[in-house]
Amino acid sequence: MLQELKESVLQANLDLVRNGLVLFTWGNVSQIDRKSGLVVIKPSGVLYESMTADDLVVVDLEGKVVEGRLRPSSDTPTHLEFYKAFAHVNGVTHTHSTFATSWAQSGRDIPFYGTTHADYFYGDIPCARALTKAEVEGEYEKNTGLVIIDRFKSDKRDPMEVPGVLIRSHGVFAFGRDAHESVHNATVLEEVAKMAFITENLNPQAQRADASMMEKHYLRKHGKNAYYGQSCK
Amino acid sequence: MLQELKESVLQANLDLVRNGLVLFTWGNVSQIDRKSGLVVIKPSGVLYESMTADDLVVVDLEGKVVEGRLRPSSDTPTHLEFYKAFAHVNGVTHTHSTFATSWAQSGRDIPFYGTTHADYFYGDIPCARALTKAEVEGEYEKNTGLVIIDRFKSDKRDPMEVPGVLIRSHGVFAFGRDAHESVHNATVLEEVAKMAFITENLNPQAQRADASMMEKHYLRKHGKNAYYGQSCK
Amino acid sequence: MLQELKESVLQANLDLVRNGLVLFTWGNVSQIDRKSGLVVIKPSGVLYESMTADDLVVVDLEGKVVEGRLRPSSDTPTHLEFYKAFAHVNGVTHTHSTFATSWAQSGRDIPFYGTTHADYFYGDIPCARALTKAEVEGEYEKNTGLVIIDRFKSDKRDPMEVPGVLIRSHGVFAFGRDAHESVHNATVLEEVAKMAFITENLNPQAQRADASMMEKHYLRKHGKNAYYGQSCK
Amino acid sequence: MLQELKESVLQANLDLVRNGLVLFTWGNVSQIDRKSGLVVIKPSGVLYESMTADDLVVVDLEGKVVEGRLRPSSDTPTHLEFYKAFAHVNGVTHTHSTFATSWAQSGRDIPFYGTTHADYFYGDIPCARALTKAEVEGEYEKNTGLVIIDRFKSDKRDPMEVPGVLIRSHGVFAFGRDAHESVHNATVLEEVAKMAFITENLNPQAQRADASMMEKHYLRKHGKNAYYGQSCK
Repeated sequence: MLQELKESVLQANLDLVRNGLVLFTWGNVSQIDRKSGLVVIKPSGVLYESMTADDLVVVDLEGKVVEGRLRPSSDTPTHLEFYKAFAHVNGVTHTHSTFATSWAQSGRDIPFYGTTHADYFYGDIPCARALTKAEVEGEYEKNTGLVIIDRFKSDKRDPMEVPGVLIRSHGVFAFGRDAHESVHNATVLEEVAKMAFITENLNPQAQRADASMMEKHYLRKHGKNAYYGQSCK
Repeated sequence: MLQELKESVLQANLDLVRNGLVLFTWGNVSQIDRKSGLVVIKPSGVLYESMTADDLVVVDLEGKVVEGRLRPSSDTPTHLEFYKAFAHVNGVTHTHSTFATSWAQSGRDIPFYGTTHADYFYGDIPCARALTKAEVEGEYEKNTGLVIIDRFKSDKRDPMEVPGVLIRSHGVFAFGRDAHESVHNATVLEEVAKMAFITENLNPQAQRADASMMEKHYLRKHGKNAYYGQSCK
Repeated sequence: MLQELKESVLQANLDLVRNGLVLFTWGNVSQIDRKSGLVVIKPSGVLYESMTADDLVVVDLEGKVVEGRLRPSSDTPTHLEFYKAFAHVNGVTHTHSTFATSWAQSGRDIPFYGTTHADYFYGDIPCARALTKAEVEGEYEKNTGLVIIDRFKSDKRDPMEVPGVLIRSHGVFAFGRDAHESVHNATVLEEVAKMAFITENLNPQAQRADASMMEKHYLRKHGKNAYYGQSCK
Repeated sequence: MLQELKESVLQANLDLVRNGLVLFTWGNVSQIDRKSGLVVIKPSGVLYESMTADDLVVVDLEGKVVEGRLRPSSDTPTHLEFYKAFAHVNGVTHTHSTFATSWAQSGRDIPFYGTTHADYFYGDIPCARALTKAEVEGEYEKNTGLVIIDRFKSDKRDPMEVPGVLIRSHGVFAFGRDAHESVHNATVLEEVAKMAFITENLNPQAQRADASMMEKHYLRKHGKNAYYGQSCK
């Protein structure tokens, strides 16, 4: 079932290791097949080095395991909320990457300081609010997703234009049109988080770049007038 | 004697290098065989790249060498105190890993800033007090252990729930149910120390995460209601 | 056409990866053939790992593609302005390397703090002013070059003696007598940027080194009385 | 001539790369043969990856090339001053390693913050004073050595007990009983410099460790009552 998708999600999970985003089993990637409404996701607590496509788990949007010998990632309910709320998000990555997680622990949005940021994220990268005690003690993983979705909605922002978010005191979720793009965006987010850290150290009064540069850089890579790359989708 | 255990302790010592926790010979791992009361430990000042299982030293709980051509690690008396005081600790790791050692040099506990921390350590990671001049000039390595044990006892904390500690102006000891788990915890401690450093740089007023998140994350990985991973011991 | 030059520019582009200066496709190197006035440059958005010499694009100084199946780097107009303005610059490198880009985001010149800097850069490394909204919305990449050229001219400095510059809120351009030397200088600039960051952290009142040391170190590697290396050009 | 020594000095130079202490050709190692009074040193500006034992240069204590096709390191006169002034120093390493050089640029001694430091360096690591304009414009490399030697003499300290020193606004010299030990000490100095940087960031009021710990750690590895390692020379 969904064999090709499993192979692709497996490689996306292994890219977490290749790109230096995870220690041990800390991170997971999933992708949805919109036709069947089924999601392929990493199993919980399994080592990347021995993982095979057959270890991946297929769940439906209610979290029921449809195929797979192993338990799905404990973060599965968060992934599912994103697929339900965001129609264009087909890939989701979760990491505890070092610099991005430190921003999440500091409780701050990552300011738009330059074009590396703007090439991928249209505006500041939000840090979602902390969950309440009741939200933590209830359906924790599901509520983690809902708090993030709320932030996007109240900010009137599109997760395809700001394809990453910080989870207060926790880590990162990144989005994409497929599993690979979500890992790519998680990798960029980590680098942007590192640069923003150094920038503020060098200049505590550092200012955001001008909005015109954000427009220019975001739109030269994305949208109908894009002119970066070979396909310019 | 204890051939299988020696091979396992050897691999745990080599993981110190693979996980980037040591320079040269700075670090050592041991494991106790509770049935015989014998401890297998790294020899003193031997290079990891040429070490074999036969180079490991077997000592009893009084520090007497029972088997081995080489001298045991100079930190052996500290390891032994832990095995005597902590009934569930069967593996001990000592490192001078960069960020954790810097916290030890700063003389501060590592605050619980997020879930990466809470997945392994239930609450702040303690930094033991400095040894007195008399303690240093006396049985130094043994006293290093006693000062740490005192801290756990006076805080009424369990080293299996807080499986790591900073040694003031020195480095790290990490604990586990076996040698491998102690190395795993030492690796996590280094990453947590790095993130906490960055977090405070980003926000000098950074707050600890809410206690409910500590409970949630620690207990979803540990204890009888754990639901992370495949075995959920 | 220009087959040897293409091979050389390909290797220079791959050195960006080997020297740790780029993530994904973020960076590009070009070299001009002064006889024909043609420039060989990296194609836009192509992965380094699969790039071959035949993927490189040949453009003239007006930006017209003379040979190549692919679109040239979107930064091509910036490279061309340098070749038109600076007669001795025959190689140009653009990167978003971590520390140098963070200095660019902080909006500050990199002060001359020591001999590592002076061995390659005669004086502070300038950070060019931000582009105006009109400059961004007009011929953005060309204007990026013009703003940098203006800075060199108004400072009366020679890009062969200060072979690197920060682009405000963006990244780095480095120069050389050929593509390889420009990558070499970009690599040095990143290391100098990292050291200057640490230096200021250690001592917020850190002072520039004495001008006599700048003279000594720059001139022992460059110019007619150089005595470093074997050729001492 | 001195073939075995050349091979050993070659390997020590290559260790600079393996230990992450140098970029490009920035660093050099030498060793003296006390019987003949001849010094084997790296040639100037030659790439490590293609260097062979035959590329090394043999000079006498006055700096005259006794054997070798290539020019010796431009830092040769500094090395020679150390061999003339310090009877027990038989190996010398020069690097621009990142953290140590940043301390040198900050103009500060590295405080003794912990046992990693004390295992190798008995007390703070000194940063020599800046050279005067006259010293720079005169015999620069020789004067660099003399200023360092002056510092050791006026502090009444022994370079075998403090086997490393910062050169103001420049970099590092490290000492040893042979070339390999000097590279080892340069590697430790870089790690100690990094930890001290992080320590001060974590706690701007960080205090030196107690003198009794310095004694204990230095003497358990060095001197006649040492009990670390297998040989305990």
